Amino acid sequence: MNFASDNTAPIPPQIMAALLRANDGYAMGYGNDPLTARVQSRIREVFQAPQAAVHLVATGTAANSLALALVCPPWGAVFCEAQAHVNMDECGAPEFFTSGAKLVGVPGNHGRMSPDTLAYALAHTGASGVHGVQRGALTITNVTEAGTVYTPDAIAALTALARAKGLPCHLDGARFANALVATGATPAEMTWKAGIDVVSFGGTKNGLMGVEAVVLFDPARSWELELRRKRAGHLASKMRYLAAQMDGWLDDDLWLSLARDANAMAARLARGIAPHATPMHPVEANMMFVRWAAGTHDRLRAAGAMYYPWTAPEGQEAARLVTSWSTTEADVDRFVAALAS
Amino acid sequence: MNFASDNTAPIPPQIMAALLRANDGYAMGYGNDPLTARVQSRIREVFQAPQAAVHLVATGTAANSLALALVCPPWGAVFCEAQAHVNMDECGAPEFFTSGAKLVGVPGNHGRMSPDTLAYALAHTGASGVHGVQRGALTITNVTEAGTVYTPDAIAALTALARAKGLPCHLDGARFANALVATGATPAEMTWKAGIDVVSFGGTKNGLMGVEAVVLFDPARSWELELRRKRAGHLASKMRYLAAQMDGWLDDDLWLSLARDANAMAARLARGIAPHATPMHPVEANMMFVRWAAGTHDRLRAAGAMYYPWTAPEGQEAARLVTSWSTTEADVDRFVAALAS
Amino acid sequence: MNFASDNTAPIPPQIMAALLRANDGYAMGYGNDPLTARVQSRIREVFQAPQAAVHLVATGTAANSLALALVCPPWGAVFCEAQAHVNMDECGAPEFFTSGAKLVGVPGNHGRMSPDTLAYALAHTGASGVHGVQRGALTITNVTEAGTVYTPDAIAALTALARAKGLPCHLDGARFANALVATGATPAEMTWKAGIDVVSFGGTKNGLMGVEAVVLFDPARSWELELRRKRAGHLASKMRYLAAQMDGWLDDDLWLSLARDANAMAARLARGIAPHATPMHPVEANMMFVRWAAGTHDRLRAAGAMYYPWTAPEGQEAARLVTSWSTTEADVDRFVAALAS
Amino acid sequence: MNFASDNTAPIPPQIMAALLRANDGYAMGYGNDPLTARVQSRIREVFQAPQAAVHLVATGTAANSLALALVCPPWGAVFCEAQAHVNMDECGAPEFFTSGAKLVGVPGNHGRMSPDTLAYALAHTGASGVHGVQRGALTITNVTEAGTVYTPDAIAALTALARAKGLPCHLDGARFANALVATGATPAEMTWKAGIDVVSFGGTKNGLMGVEAVVLFDPARSWELELRRKRAGHLASKMRYLAAQMDGWLDDDLWLSLARDANAMAARLARGIAPHATPMHPVEANMMFVRWAAGTHDRLRAAGAMYYPWTAPEGQEAARLVTSWSTTEADVDRFVAALAS
Repeated sequence: MNFASDNTAPIPPQIMAALLRANDGYAMGYGNDPLTARVQSRIREVFQAPQAAVHLVATGTAANSLALALVCPPWGAVFCEAQAHVNMDECGAPEFFTSGAKLVGVPGNHGRMSPDTLAYALAHTGASGVHGVQRGALTITNVTEAGTVYTPDAIAALTALARAKGLPCHLDGARFANALVATGATPAEMTWKAGIDVVSFGGTKNGLMGVEAVVLFDPARSWELELRRKRAGHLASKMRYLAAQMDGWLDDDLWLSLARDANAMAARLARGIAPHATPMHPVEANMMFVRWAAGTHDRLRAAGAMYYPWTAPEGQEAARLVTSWSTTEADVDRFVAALAS
Repeated sequence: MNFASDNTAPIPPQIMAALLRANDGYAMGYGNDPLTARVQSRIREVFQAPQAAVHLVATGTAANSLALALVCPPWGAVFCEAQAHVNMDECGAPEFFTSGAKLVGVPGNHGRMSPDTLAYALAHTGASGVHGVQRGALTITNVTEAGTVYTPDAIAALTALARAKGLPCHLDGARFANALVATGATPAEMTWKAGIDVVSFGGTKNGLMGVEAVVLFDPARSWELELRRKRAGHLASKMRYLAAQMDGWLDDDLWLSLARDANAMAARLARGIAPHATPMHPVEANMMFVRWAAGTHDRLRAAGAMYYPWTAPEGQEAARLVTSWSTTEADVDRFVAALAS
Repeated sequence: MNFASDNTAPIPPQIMAALLRANDGYAMGYGNDPLTARVQSRIREVFQAPQAAVHLVATGTAANSLALALVCPPWGAVFCEAQAHVNMDECGAPEFFTSGAKLVGVPGNHGRMSPDTLAYALAHTGASGVHGVQRGALTITNVTEAGTVYTPDAIAALTALARAKGLPCHLDGARFANALVATGATPAEMTWKAGIDVVSFGGTKNGLMGVEAVVLFDPARSWELELRRKRAGHLASKMRYLAAQMDGWLDDDLWLSLARDANAMAARLARGIAPHATPMHPVEANMMFVRWAAGTHDRLRAAGAMYYPWTAPEGQEAARLVTSWSTTEADVDRFVAALAS
Repeated sequence: MNFASDNTAPIPPQIMAALLRANDGYAMGYGNDPLTARVQSRIREVFQAPQAAVHLVATGTAANSLALALVCPPWGAVFCEAQAHVNMDECGAPEFFTSGAKLVGVPGNHGRMSPDTLAYALAHTGASGVHGVQRGALTITNVTEAGTVYTPDAIAALTALARAKGLPCHLDGARFANALVATGATPAEMTWKAGIDVVSFGGTKNGLMGVEAVVLFDPARSWELELRRKRAGHLASKMRYLAAQMDGWLDDDLWLSLARDANAMAARLARGIAPHATPMHPVEANMMFVRWAAGTHDRLRAAGAMYYPWTAPEGQEAARLVTSWSTTEADVDRFVAALAS
């Protein structure tokens, strides 16, 4: 009954098998191996983007920060939802990688920026000439920090505003697969067809040990990304082991199956706890935030449940519950039973 | 017959087994798991340093750059051998992580700084008051870029000079195990007993997929290192998979066995090629640089040998040859035969 | 009738005279001249701070950014009022100088943070362990961006909250003299007696060509400030010409007279325009923000008035009006007459 | 008898007069004043470069660092003569402004790089793919740190090599006027006609209080330079006082007269001391480095001479002697007499 995070789950056996297969003999380092080339090619196919540049890194923070540093100058403002991971949970990594850009937190509704709030922020930043920071980039997180999902149309509505100001658009897809299966959109629909220039295509929260792909739809600055990756210590010498994981993950659409399972368990969990818990946001993917009666934490922990408590109003308790590919129906049902008891 | 690098070899089966063992059920993220704690404790024992802070990262560049940024301010000079990896092969990562420190290349002899050349550099840097950069830190690479090895005494002679100026001392131990088995020194003798404050304890070039430990003997700044690691995107969420590798590697001194095998194969190779090749530096660990007659590259490649050609004088050829734990006697003998043919 | 800014005014004749006096013969560079030493000493007296370190620079942005970089690490949060100059009008200079700190805009009331809003921000930042930025520093602007003034008590109430969290406190005193004469406080009361560690003591907006002093009450890190100043290109080689201006400005409390004149003209202006304009904030020093009827801008400009229009609600107009030492009663009265016409 | 530096001299009366003239009434800030526009225009004429962008700053370190940051990325190598001011005397400012570029010291002969030494450095940097820093920019100092001068042809020979590799070329002209009058070249011949893209056009060492112009021959990145200037705290709010100095300095070619006087005094000094001192480098502008017998320093100081002692071989003494516009024949002759006594 571990609902603490999608990064507490083990790795699916198919991924372990892919690692074992890749561990056969010698392979050139730093991505100059056939497996890396193969995975790059497969990711281009997944995104229907034959020209895209694909670069693997080991963490989501690295993927996001490298992508933002590529598209936003040091004197730029990065527009993001106020609670976005890049703004709240990366210890200033985007500021470090960009050499000091300013993150502008746009108010969100259930984790989603609206065209109105983004338009307001765009209108009020970069308007003081040389004195203020300039508009730099837009970054959108999907699945959001609130566990909600943007549709491709919702993304397009935001990128249209940004692009009208000349801004490049980044998608933080740490839970990209969960967003895809939640909406039924294709990777292309969710990204470049909706105005996205560069994606952090996340594998870590969806079953991999630690692999993310930075997918750059216009490859013109791919070499700069490679230099930035190396310079940040994120060029893996034994790249084949990152590639192997993503290769196994793409086989037979395993990555989508894993996300589908995680989302399904979240839906089951949401239904099960509904009588006893109040959702703080719509449950649309594999993460939910709920409030319940004071005293519930103790009871659930006694039953062996793990999750992060969240900030709650006086007299209540709140929790973040995350499901993953490895969450079982039994886990969910035991949790629901413990909550109901 | 792959002598291109120690990062082209596969992973020993014991490491794969350790990964599989670690892949059992849930574990808290970001290093808050029992396996990470266990590995940190074991590394402290290996270094006979019960107070040391131990932080795992995935690449040597990250380990070096984080360590240097911890001990050297932006206006500091990092003294290193002129050809050191930090100076030549990290695309400016130390400059990035330190926010602009200046690397001062100290001339070396077969890759080793001497007390004289270091003393000269120390005397001529930081001597112009506010106008020039200040002395910041010393970093020593062992095994050196030339494949030679410092003894603990040789390290102590350098750190004594640096410490007399108040400088902290870092050891880039990307091939630390190879240096240990070459000298018979213990980890403690090679590091803190010889005046080293912080070590990049390398696993990647010695059989791991990509794991290095930053070992900080004075843990007072451990929290700052954690913040810098996170901020650089080098805090692995699923840390157990880094820890697992190092755990399996420490079992039964596997790490030393792997290095001993690599060094032994280098010695065999050096002996075998001696009639046909001129060493550029003493062969003391698992890497050698040799010159041979023009035309040799073609012959060796035709025989299936892989390695990096090196800069050679007109009319000659040169090569870097690196052995690893997976190099076999048969590989070596085939290479020697091809060279001799 | 120039009310555009206090930086559009000329330099008082006493300052020009001081420059001429200083231009006599040779003087050692980089602050190693007697006049710089004399001014440093006088500033220490002004602040009743015999131990303080005093460093001159040419711009307020430099003073603020150097001070913040001295006290806040790259992974720190700088708490400031949301509209503060450091946050809105320095094109990210604090982020540049600090190597990527994050400015946290605390909501203000008429430009002033309250203990409540600051306490909320302090409680919600630095609370997510290694994942978020850490609390770094507090910076307070006095006179505020809204033209209002903090009393020493109001400053002490804010610094007490910050210091309880271990944070150093900076005062952006670009209009420090105006705040002093508005409150009757002494420099010591407004700064170190109220919990301030470092001040940007501004001369430029109060009659100098471009001179600010960074005053560091605990001089332990003075050398670091010197290195940062040099490294940022802010160590003037001919420092005597900066020192000379400040020396002339301190003579006979000229600096306070200039501020008193500016504030008096602002009060006269505020009284004069009261029948025709609505103040957006209390007028407490030498800057005011007002709303008036649509069409007023055209009339005033036709009369020769200069000032910055401000954002206004539909159907209205707004303006920022700033007075300086050189504003005359005649200027004010002509402006009032034009407005009233 | 002050030969310590060209920055110890006072300001010519014409410059003081220009300041007084500029101090008349109100002027818009941040360079939006007519005097700044006028000076920018005049500098374009001086350089016969009608399209050039001209930006004033207060220090040479700022001018150099801003220019280098504009043309060199963080992962770039800046090629400079090993003893160049940017490498040795700016406390790492270029590294700070560029966010961590690496300065590559090219060996010089009497302070001048040769095409051979530059070609060698260009060939051996940027040749290791993603692993090493990339070639970024060339910077040439004229007058050199050794007091020698490059002719336009010598500059063109260096820039041709750099441009063949695609590198932009910067000229550090802290003593630009002295180089011009030494060679008879025009500003255009010494810069863009010789392959220079951006110049630090120095006024401070040639009679101004602290004014340098960054002249960018291709203005396409002028806006970026403005943002970088502001962000570094180098946008003067009362720009007219910087502009005024340069305006007075350009009147009647005063700037060239001042440099001519300084160079003439250096030549007289060099002739006078020749019987008693050995020049370390050819004396070509307004700075010389000489060796003389041990004990000389004491005698000269007793006579009231000021200068910087330099590093000398055992048993000798050495000195740097710098003349300026304000050096008189009497000063020179007294110095020579004291030396000869």
